[in-house]
Amino acid sequence: MTTGRRGARRSETARVAILAATVRLFATRGYDHLSIEGIAAEAGVAKQTIYRWWPSKGPLIAECMLEGMLLPGRFVPRDTGDVRADLAAWLDAIFGFLIDPTGESIFRSLISAAAENVEVGVRLRDSLGAASSLVERLGRGVEAGQIPPDAPLQEVSEALVGAVIVRALSRTPLAPGDPERLVDAVIGVHR
Amino acid sequence: MTTGRRGARRSETARVAILAATVRLFATRGYDHLSIEGIAAEAGVAKQTIYRWWPSKGPLIAECMLEGMLLPGRFVPRDTGDVRADLAAWLDAIFGFLIDPTGESIFRSLISAAAENVEVGVRLRDSLGAASSLVERLGRGVEAGQIPPDAPLQEVSEALVGAVIVRALSRTPLAPGDPERLVDAVIGVHR
Repeated sequence: MTTGRRGARRSETARVAILAATVRLFATRGYDHLSIEGIAAEAGVAKQTIYRWWPSKGPLIAECMLEGMLLPGRFVPRDTGDVRADLAAWLDAIFGFLIDPTGESIFRSLISAAAENVEVGVRLRDSLGAASSLVERLGRGVEAGQIPPDAPLQEVSEALVGAVIVRALSRTPLAPGDPERLVDAVIGVHR
Repeated sequence: MTTGRRGARRSETARVAILAATVRLFATRGYDHLSIEGIAAEAGVAKQTIYRWWPSKGPLIAECMLEGMLLPGRFVPRDTGDVRADLAAWLDAIFGFLIDPTGESIFRSLISAAAENVEVGVRLRDSLGAASSLVERLGRGVEAGQIPPDAPLQEVSEALVGAVIVRALSRTPLAPGDPERLVDAVIGVHR
């Protein structure tokens, strides 16, 4: 049993080292140039150690996202009681991350990884809040009478997350008032 | 002058051969595995011929899109007088393209290419209609009193195109009524 526990501890150390190496290489070289061989060298483990847990680089990136190692965990909309202001602040936080060249590079590499691997695609959508926190915040906006009760919340959140991705792909710079306009595009609070 | 014309004709032939070869390789192998060398071999031209006109594979893909060789040209919303029905039909056409495995593979490769090359990113957004035809159709919806006059049309179109990209990245299957719900998410005709 003691040996077993030590084994588990060793595995966790290796796991964290592998994830950290993945993040470092991903952030500097992007998804295309990421290889299991390179990650193994960077983490100081054998390639087989990585392949024992992950079949390819896609699921590895997805696990880094799950651990909050690639996107900051702050992309959860707050609840101050004003859904329009809260969603605009949420967009501001994401666009603030994208203005930083490293953040922008990580985000675009994640989109590229998502295009190739469905696990990363689902994780990217969820990390930005489309699956849970964003829909929940919209739901409280409905309860507060700030969003029409028949608004399709899942689709509204997909449209918001999608707008962020379109901006990132077309490198459209953010103009003052853009977050508010994007929120108005989907929840029409101004109407 | 005759010689000059013949030269121009030769160039146009080579240009079309290069674009066609790019489309074939892109559709079968994806963006990551696309190389100028491979395109040159497929098109039967020298690498230098390609580099004379395009600095890298990104602008080459962008030109294929501009020529309508990668996405069908049908993604222009119709105008039957009913903006909700027209936008749902436009989404149906795009999702119909994505249901086909070749179409889906091309679309995801385009997203990957867009993440790496800004020209492709802008072209992808515009091919889906976010820059012109979609905004124009929304504008006629405003004139017809079907969309509130203060709706931010540019942002609405970005959100719609973005929702399509999010669906493609997360491989979310389309359920009956989804196109209408996505339209309602941004123009709220039902309210």
